[in-house]
Amino acid sequence: RASNIQKVEHAISDDARALRNGHGGGVLWFTGLSGAGKSTLAVATERRLFNLGYQVYVLDGDNMRQGLNADLGFSPEERGENIRRVGEVAALMAHAGMLVITAFISPYRSDRERARKATGEGFFEIYLQADLAVCEKRDPKGLYAKARTGEIENFTGISAPYEVPESPDLVVNTTIQDVDSAVDTIIKYVKECFHAEATRAAKGI
Amino acid sequence: RASNIQKVEHAISDDARALRNGHGGGVLWFTGLSGAGKSTLAVATERRLFNLGYQVYVLDGDNMRQGLNADLGFSPEERGENIRRVGEVAALMAHAGMLVITAFISPYRSDRERARKATGEGFFEIYLQADLAVCEKRDPKGLYAKARTGEIENFTGISAPYEVPESPDLVVNTTIQDVDSAVDTIIKYVKECFHAEATRAAKGI
Repeated sequence: RASNIQKVEHAISDDARALRNGHGGGVLWFTGLSGAGKSTLAVATERRLFNLGYQVYVLDGDNMRQGLNADLGFSPEERGENIRRVGEVAALMAHAGMLVITAFISPYRSDRERARKATGEGFFEIYLQADLAVCEKRDPKGLYAKARTGEIENFTGISAPYEVPESPDLVVNTTIQDVDSAVDTIIKYVKECFHAEATRAAKGI
Repeated sequence: RASNIQKVEHAISDDARALRNGHGGGVLWFTGLSGAGKSTLAVATERRLFNLGYQVYVLDGDNMRQGLNADLGFSPEERGENIRRVGEVAALMAHAGMLVITAFISPYRSDRERARKATGEGFFEIYLQADLAVCEKRDPKGLYAKARTGEIENFTGISAPYEVPESPDLVVNTTIQDVDSAVDTIIKYVKECFHAEATRAAKGI
């Protein structure tokens, strides 16, 4: 044993990172129709969590489609690959100790389940529930109008399916709750989930 | 102005993250031959930086090839795509405030320059210099032996080129320096680069 003089550097454990940050790494996977409030709530939740001291980051269409997924178009296969990569990047960042918020329609259960498997523990599916009629009325990007005229094909809710989560970790009804109230709900949930994890980490060390 | 009652949540600035962490986000892009010490030094540097309070994470073949890049083989095109994605993920994590260490041979200048562009400011190319003969003697994974017999094709340094960095940000000669000494050199460099950035951020706010 004494001859083993080579210093071995160990990778940093999830627990060590959680102890440092005061919370474990993880993923808040927002899913819902276009216009359900994913991006708005993602940014608002990120801001609130950052102010509370969390290491937090939003992955959304803007930062994914312009960089990592710039090679992908909008065919069904490419949409699937888009979501697969989002899930894998979120998993990497969660492993690095961050709390990642993803804001993608992600209409297929299989895609969301694959993302959950990539992260494992610490993945929370948050269903932003809103009636199609409400989302279509909001139509923040004018996409529903284009989908109705057929200018956009395969549009979720109009000409492509949205598979409602069967057992989401949290449901936020954005038809009823306004932004502040919805963020309150999410923050309360995050504190419950991730404080427990940090406490466990602290006890483990 | 009074009618503008909608609260606008702003994204978190790089400076705010840097102020929180005590250092800006960035990328230490290790490049060098197989056996030059990339993985060893990446893990050792990560450990040391973590102990110094940095938000730090290593991207290497293990965590990339098993997840995000599991769909990629080893053809020249797929190797290029592998490095492109590493560069984009590193850029995302740097934007999230982390200091990312990447450990890939990345033999082509064009690939490394593309990675630099993805991150922009905060990207540092660190050339781990070691003589081919030394690397081949170390041969930690037995790959050079297989490359010599032709069992592995297109092996960097043997049957495929390694394009030496023309103007790396830092050179560490791992033929001369041992692990501890090499890490010392890297840590000193990181402190210079990233402390200055955090100071600038602090003054900016």
